[in-house]
Amino acid sequence: MSREEEMGALEEGRFDPEVSDNTVGEGAGGPAMGTMENAVRVLLMGLGEDSEREGLRKTPIRVAKAFREGTRGNNEFVDAFVGYRQKVEDIVQGAFFPEAGLNNGIGHAGGDGGLVVVRDINLFSYCESCLLPFSIKCHVGYIPSGQRVVGLSKLSRVADVYAKRLQEPQRLADEICQALQNSIRPAGVSVALQCWHIQFPKVLKCINLNLPRHPSRSSMQGWVHTSVCSSTGVFEQKKSSFSDDFHTLLQFSGANFDLSNTGCSIHSWCLLRSLDVPESNDDMMRNNLLNGRIFSKPVVSHTSMVAAVASIILSLGEDPSRKELVGTPYRYVHWLMNFSRSNIDIRQNGFLLNAINSHKSSNGYIHRENEINSELNLPFCAQCEHHLLPFHGVVHIGYFHDEEKKDIDRSSLQTMVHFYGCKLQVQERLTRQIAEAVYSVLGRGVMVVLEANHICMVSRGIEKVGSSTATIAVMGQFSTDITAKALFLEAISKVTAAVGP
Amino acid sequence: MSREEEMGALEEGRFDPEVSDNTVGEGAGGPAMGTMENAVRVLLMGLGEDSEREGLRKTPIRVAKAFREGTRGNNEFVDAFVGYRQKVEDIVQGAFFPEAGLNNGIGHAGGDGGLVVVRDINLFSYCESCLLPFSIKCHVGYIPSGQRVVGLSKLSRVADVYAKRLQEPQRLADEICQALQNSIRPAGVSVALQCWHIQFPKVLKCINLNLPRHPSRSSMQGWVHTSVCSSTGVFEQKKSSFSDDFHTLLQFSGANFDLSNTGCSIHSWCLLRSLDVPESNDDMMRNNLLNGRIFSKPVVSHTSMVAAVASIILSLGEDPSRKELVGTPYRYVHWLMNFSRSNIDIRQNGFLLNAINSHKSSNGYIHRENEINSELNLPFCAQCEHHLLPFHGVVHIGYFHDEEKKDIDRSSLQTMVHFYGCKLQVQERLTRQIAEAVYSVLGRGVMVVLEANHICMVSRGIEKVGSSTATIAVMGQFSTDITAKALFLEAISKVTAAVGP
Repeated sequence: MSREEEMGALEEGRFDPEVSDNTVGEGAGGPAMGTMENAVRVLLMGLGEDSEREGLRKTPIRVAKAFREGTRGNNEFVDAFVGYRQKVEDIVQGAFFPEAGLNNGIGHAGGDGGLVVVRDINLFSYCESCLLPFSIKCHVGYIPSGQRVVGLSKLSRVADVYAKRLQEPQRLADEICQALQNSIRPAGVSVALQCWHIQFPKVLKCINLNLPRHPSRSSMQGWVHTSVCSSTGVFEQKKSSFSDDFHTLLQFSGANFDLSNTGCSIHSWCLLRSLDVPESNDDMMRNNLLNGRIFSKPVVSHTSMVAAVASIILSLGEDPSRKELVGTPYRYVHWLMNFSRSNIDIRQNGFLLNAINSHKSSNGYIHRENEINSELNLPFCAQCEHHLLPFHGVVHIGYFHDEEKKDIDRSSLQTMVHFYGCKLQVQERLTRQIAEAVYSVLGRGVMVVLEANHICMVSRGIEKVGSSTATIAVMGQFSTDITAKALFLEAISKVTAAVGP
Repeated sequence: MSREEEMGALEEGRFDPEVSDNTVGEGAGGPAMGTMENAVRVLLMGLGEDSEREGLRKTPIRVAKAFREGTRGNNEFVDAFVGYRQKVEDIVQGAFFPEAGLNNGIGHAGGDGGLVVVRDINLFSYCESCLLPFSIKCHVGYIPSGQRVVGLSKLSRVADVYAKRLQEPQRLADEICQALQNSIRPAGVSVALQCWHIQFPKVLKCINLNLPRHPSRSSMQGWVHTSVCSSTGVFEQKKSSFSDDFHTLLQFSGANFDLSNTGCSIHSWCLLRSLDVPESNDDMMRNNLLNGRIFSKPVVSHTSMVAAVASIILSLGEDPSRKELVGTPYRYVHWLMNFSRSNIDIRQNGFLLNAINSHKSSNGYIHRENEINSELNLPFCAQCEHHLLPFHGVVHIGYFHDEEKKDIDRSSLQTMVHFYGCKLQVQERLTRQIAEAVYSVLGRGVMVVLEANHICMVSRGIEKVGSSTATIAVMGQFSTDITAKALFLEAISKVTAAVGP
């Protein structure tokens, strides 16, 4: 039995919880889901992939579910057949509690005038300019009035309803703020958001290569960051100190809310926004060819891919002709095409063979210990083939120094990491491919450690914020030499120690 | 219209998402839910509370839902009417993907022998000894074999199924490990858990009062911590280095997994476990009376409360006569009774009046700035009246120094915080009550800042790990003197700076 058959047999006739679970409110099917699945198949074909290959076979339904889950704020609205404000009022309505204000003296507290702040609510939203998820730390403050308070978890739930849409940071802050003001009717509401937007792989390649190596803590480094704020009522009054108190309490929790950074423009926030969207998609096709990017023969046109994304947006209950969304399908396809399948192999391409011997020993990144060279913290951004969502982090490569063959310089290794990352991937395979590529030119022994954050682990139903994944591949001398392995791992942990916990 | 009527009117006839949402798999009702709700009403009455008062009216259904949600790992089993191993196999079955091993050379990678680790999966479980939730950071490593890998999110999902039960750390690690071994059939699995169990309020009072003041980062300080590990296959082999590699990768992510701390006994893990469970609950009643704890007349006996908790355990699909669960109802009631309603008021009790004048100015905790005294980082643990789950953190109290009345010493303020914390509470009210109590003896001006972590924000469907809540109450001179307010907040932030970000 071939491997493919074996895998098929494993799945045949089985209950598949990935497909039937995590359903929010609706049945698993429906015409909108079918439309989205077909659209994702078009995208996979446009990427030069076989959408029927193992690993991609269920990607269309996974992606459709992730999109629906990620925009369920819309779906709640659509499902409920009620007005939008009504829905939020429903969330908070059952959770008002009478709390007396102060019973004597002048002051503010309890159910009247005392500041209440919920800090560090982790949210995920989708950028309306490019359909990529962005990460949010949301802070909400309000001043109760009328001797009543609202259940604390409701502030988080309302924020989540507005995050789960195609959004833009300032509008998100404004919408959460207005919805809470209208539903709770307090003396004032203030919403502060810290938002992080992932960058292009091409941009990532150019940024500071000396990223801190701890992916779960530094995961937002190298992302575009913006802070936005929205306020109503007493928070808007210049002479009141409520706004100052709110921001002081945010500082206490380590939020470092940088007001000077507020108001990052949409162009600098979403770097894809700065793309000129061509009148015709033929331009895009021509540009890609001019840029020399090699596709396996695309079986579908870029126009079809752009149309497919527009149909996804429509299926999510959004209007693709809304001003902010007009260029979105083009931008998303542009992002995706960074991960299009290439049939060339970097090893056969002669690239690495040319790169060796060019090593300069003055390179500060190289640790020479017992002839082991370590190149640490090579950043990467790949696309998870199961969910079409990015995973990103750092690669550490250790290899035995070979007097004859010399070393590979860091930028060549970085280019190689970029090459293998820029396609639909799984972390285990990416780790193996990098190891094999290095081993193919430097035969003695190679060890690769890859540490990554998977957006699919947080932006879908899983929501395991802070989790990170590490994989190891070991070839040649490293697989028998435990001391060498330990030395390389120690080299990585030294960098950790230098960066600090 | 009275305030109560107004609150009632707000809720009447409304859709209540707290009650109808967050339902996992089942309908909202069912006989088990009704049994649990009745049992919670018995507990509320045993605490001397009016279960019909606003704020508590929906507590029975909230608590029942939280228990069901927190033990849904059982429910999945019960619902599915399938064997236990079968269920976990269903979770992973749809998520196997073929991944080639290395195509040449000696080594381990990809679908064969390369270590795969998912770190820092945040989970919550319920302690089987006392029914209180405990917090978990779960790390899973496995060595793929047979040229296939499993979807990364499945490791987290399987861990969650076993966490969502009445558990004990070592058994939890063993069960996750065995379930993954049996369903994935890799070369080996290793599961490492870091667990934190909340302490008693009475114990909390005695621990180091100089806790770091950042609740969201230090929230686990002062909790009982234990680390456990469970391994199968190649991780158990002494000569293999897989186990070392796994723990090294955990150190990279800052886990500081302390193997020397492994194997904390169940008695030191759950402090309630060290209670002698009396043969008869009459003993408990007598002990409580001997200890001089003043209850408002309990309308239900302690025996009824213990029986009510046993009925909750039964409704969750557990056997209350299972060895580990026999003393659990008694221990949970013992914990709850820390929060029983008292009709005395600490202000009328003369306690604070006796405490003033006893201040020694050598107390290092007092910052005297413009006559403002600051007592910072007074720890507390209260019980959320909406969910019967703890919220805990620190209180900062600032008050104007009064030459005539002198100061209140820190231990008296701590006792007061403890007094107001040890009942069914909401954070806004607790903040107000502390401010009022201090103001009643030191009239010039009082400001209270309370920073807390609410377990109800993470252990139910909300799962906002890392969020924290801050409230402010301001009385007298502080409400008009913005400079004084700012000085006090600055005193708090100075402590932050000293502790470090």
